[in-house]
Amino acid sequence: MMFCTLLFAAIAVAQNSSMPTSTSVYDIGVPTEAPVPGLYNGAWRPQVHFSPPRNFMNDPNGCFRDDNGTWHLYYQYNPTATVAGNQHWGHATSQDLYTWENQEIAIYATEDSQIFSGSAVIDVNNTSGFFPNQTNGVVAIYTLNTEYEQVQEIAYSYDGGYTFVKYADNPVLALDPSSNQFRDPKVIRYGDSWAMVLAYAQEFVVGIFTSPDLKNWTHASNFSHHGLLGLQYECPNLVQMPVEGSDEAMWVLAISINPGAPLGGSITQYFPGDFNGTHFTPVDGAARIADFGKDNYAGQFFYGLPETEEQVFIAWASNWEYSQQVPTGESEGWRSSMSAPRRTHLANVTRTGWDIVSAPYDLSPIYSSPLAINSSLGNGSILLDYSTLPSRAIYFQVNVSSIPNNTYSKGTLNFTFSSSSTRESVSGGFYFGGDNPFWLSRAKVLGFGETNPFFTDKFSVGNPINANGMFMLEGVMDRSILEVFLDGGRNSATMTFFPLGELDTMEVRAGGLNEHVTVSVAVWGLQSTWQNQASEDGVVYGNVTSGGNPTQATKRDMRVHN
Amino acid sequence: MMFCTLLFAAIAVAQNSSMPTSTSVYDIGVPTEAPVPGLYNGAWRPQVHFSPPRNFMNDPNGCFRDDNGTWHLYYQYNPTATVAGNQHWGHATSQDLYTWENQEIAIYATEDSQIFSGSAVIDVNNTSGFFPNQTNGVVAIYTLNTEYEQVQEIAYSYDGGYTFVKYADNPVLALDPSSNQFRDPKVIRYGDSWAMVLAYAQEFVVGIFTSPDLKNWTHASNFSHHGLLGLQYECPNLVQMPVEGSDEAMWVLAISINPGAPLGGSITQYFPGDFNGTHFTPVDGAARIADFGKDNYAGQFFYGLPETEEQVFIAWASNWEYSQQVPTGESEGWRSSMSAPRRTHLANVTRTGWDIVSAPYDLSPIYSSPLAINSSLGNGSILLDYSTLPSRAIYFQVNVSSIPNNTYSKGTLNFTFSSSSTRESVSGGFYFGGDNPFWLSRAKVLGFGETNPFFTDKFSVGNPINANGMFMLEGVMDRSILEVFLDGGRNSATMTFFPLGELDTMEVRAGGLNEHVTVSVAVWGLQSTWQNQASEDGVVYGNVTSGGNPTQATKRDMRVHN
Repeated sequence: MMFCTLLFAAIAVAQNSSMPTSTSVYDIGVPTEAPVPGLYNGAWRPQVHFSPPRNFMNDPNGCFRDDNGTWHLYYQYNPTATVAGNQHWGHATSQDLYTWENQEIAIYATEDSQIFSGSAVIDVNNTSGFFPNQTNGVVAIYTLNTEYEQVQEIAYSYDGGYTFVKYADNPVLALDPSSNQFRDPKVIRYGDSWAMVLAYAQEFVVGIFTSPDLKNWTHASNFSHHGLLGLQYECPNLVQMPVEGSDEAMWVLAISINPGAPLGGSITQYFPGDFNGTHFTPVDGAARIADFGKDNYAGQFFYGLPETEEQVFIAWASNWEYSQQVPTGESEGWRSSMSAPRRTHLANVTRTGWDIVSAPYDLSPIYSSPLAINSSLGNGSILLDYSTLPSRAIYFQVNVSSIPNNTYSKGTLNFTFSSSSTRESVSGGFYFGGDNPFWLSRAKVLGFGETNPFFTDKFSVGNPINANGMFMLEGVMDRSILEVFLDGGRNSATMTFFPLGELDTMEVRAGGLNEHVTVSVAVWGLQSTWQNQASEDGVVYGNVTSGGNPTQATKRDMRVHN
Repeated sequence: MMFCTLLFAAIAVAQNSSMPTSTSVYDIGVPTEAPVPGLYNGAWRPQVHFSPPRNFMNDPNGCFRDDNGTWHLYYQYNPTATVAGNQHWGHATSQDLYTWENQEIAIYATEDSQIFSGSAVIDVNNTSGFFPNQTNGVVAIYTLNTEYEQVQEIAYSYDGGYTFVKYADNPVLALDPSSNQFRDPKVIRYGDSWAMVLAYAQEFVVGIFTSPDLKNWTHASNFSHHGLLGLQYECPNLVQMPVEGSDEAMWVLAISINPGAPLGGSITQYFPGDFNGTHFTPVDGAARIADFGKDNYAGQFFYGLPETEEQVFIAWASNWEYSQQVPTGESEGWRSSMSAPRRTHLANVTRTGWDIVSAPYDLSPIYSSPLAINSSLGNGSILLDYSTLPSRAIYFQVNVSSIPNNTYSKGTLNFTFSSSSTRESVSGGFYFGGDNPFWLSRAKVLGFGETNPFFTDKFSVGNPINANGMFMLEGVMDRSILEVFLDGGRNSATMTFFPLGELDTMEVRAGGLNEHVTVSVAVWGLQSTWQNQASEDGVVYGNVTSGGNPTQATKRDMRVHN
């Protein structure tokens, strides 16, 4: 058992260099049996979203829910710089998907290889042979990236996903001749078999493989050249989810593309369809985009949820066009957060047919206090000063009813979050009537977009009024990230921004609406899930109850025995 | 023969109203046997792009090249307001695709119906029976839009496309039950038959129909739910074009979508594939976007070019999200221009496979003087004051050579057009190395984007460096519109903007490039194709040589005889 080293002096070494070379984690003092500590009190630090304790994070990896109901989130993590490189699998756990406890790094890079994206499964039946004495063995399947190639490896965990042992006979899947564009395995259980989707990135192919034991993989089929291509396919996902108004479940294949998304850079698209264990068949030839913002990439569905339950999705809330330049790196020592967790199902009720409906996962565990409730806003406005809310994290919901047929409907519903010190603002709004556009803007935020040529200022989507004459807008605002959900999540968007002054004022304003249209607004403060964990020195140390955590104890026992 | 009425007093009546109701053109004095006159000297008026003499234009319609080599451009035209509504087919002709002569309105709206988008063909063999005595008869196929439905009608022209007679037995194609989402017929010749593609807009279906005579149409097949759907399919196009490095020609189906494009609003996508006269089969399931800007919609290919010739494409250079709000309406009395005409072919040389390569049509007829030539810019810059160039329209080309492999390449190439009076600017740039992003920005232009929530500020695309180590950037800058073309048109973008001060200064700057990389820059002034046509009072009257134009004379003869 290695000694726990808590040395951070060298962490900033590679900060702001353009692309650090891979370095041994041991050389620079990344702790190996304790979480990386971090300060979560910066003005831009999300308080109800996951972000790494320090340095650089990108894709969610290995997401699963264990038998105890604990959610495990791994993530692409460079613990030694605020830019990508030296990629490990960071790890955090949660009971509610908002309050995350940082765990020690789960899978470490080595001097000459990085641990790229992948997934994790629970091998209940010990198909792998790694787990003769347990039903909660976890296997991680990831891409090992070296200077020469990308291959698929596995690692197993006896302690429910806290520590991993790399399989001795890795890799379990490699190409001949080798490729450095072959990555991001996502494995699921299908019947008595395992099925994997992974990307032949620059060939625009999602390969589908099957395995009886997670060790031996057989190529089954390819799904290629569908939807938006951009310049690479990455991070495929395959998941079955409930269908609204039906007892059926249906499959979805998600593919992220980067670079080359229509908005520039990175985007997640998906294809509803059918999967028979070896082949995926989309319902149609349409390309559907998961999010109309520019900060939602490499999203992953959590493993371990029955298909009758809404599936839970989490994405990296950034974009490769600017993720390594955002100002949080220099000023606060971290870069990138995850999106809010989203519960998702399929619906076939909108004009475009099949659609993933994606709404924030249950926020009730982190509600603090209602900040404003107005059930009859009408053509009026509310103005809310929330500068005294410690988290400055908010959930808001606006419900509009009795909207007439679109031929007659008119008026607007707008919201603005602004800074009382700098007058910067983040805003959005909806037009009733016409093409029913909803827009989001970060144009009036001064901390980054003024100088970065890729930080697009405005996003929009057409969101037709429902036949029932109702429109709902929900939003989660969290310091430097806003997520909006229209009509329960029929459309959603993720947007990051970096104001020079703290956003502390919210306005909701409706104007020009038809007579008899009703508008209700409710705004809740959210608890800071990070400040609750901070020690007296302000630092969040994560799970450092060495030996005190039953799972950790088990882990160490197991490791001694092995 | 009706008397030529040149009454303009009432033209501004409906300006800036949100959506004027259809009004008889005769009531408000739109000239019926002469072009609508217009002032083309506004600070935002493009000088080498087509824009309507006054009021509102959208989609290109009925584009064809006649046997004399004259290019005919029709367009969705509201001659009575600067917003859409009361749609006619405006008309202009050109010998070079840049110098456009305004013709009288070709097809008129009536009190209760509007002439929506469509196409035109030359019925050489008199399949329609309209043209017993000529081989140059023109048939326009368009959508008649009424309060209740959309149906397809035809009109025929004895005078080569200047005036049209509506067919007595219209409509030639209608749905039962009727639909108000059935529009935009594009007709081509296929073997001994006519083939039509048109949109069942909100069903995301392109219907393919065939006809022996342009009057009787038979449904052949549907192409549905492919690519991006947005909230409507519009303006399908079907064309055959040459394939680079081959003697073959290949088919392309283009579909515009609005609203609901990824960037918001309107976009044109396309599918390379095969067409057998009744069915279209795409090469793959990919969704390809014609232009990475936000101002390129409803593009149409000109009819009448052999498939061995590069096909010519022209698009509406705007977006429905803001086309009816741009400030040219209020200040200069017109809204929207077309894109530059583009010569197009297919290539299969890039990482993503099939790609429309789209470059400006031959500009040599409108070159004025070279403004700057620098064949060895290196890591340096040029600054060019072009305030004395009357057109303030420019073509520029930057060629970069000897770029090393992308692993080693580095540096940037940027350009800026700025206003010496206001310091506003329009800019773009390319990063060598990494994901090779190219960006465009209208963020520093103050005349519109500050207040419009849909006028997105920045656009980008990934443009991998060619194996030959060369990169080419071309641009056409024309007062309020910039089009860029990368690597001969492998990627292209259209961007409009409305500066408060005139853009009159250009800078090109390269920095951080690898040793041995060479950069050459050439900038040419372009002639104002509109000012050359202006009368002493500054007004462009278009083709008013009543009786003096042989074609017009023929037209009147024909009409008397009919």
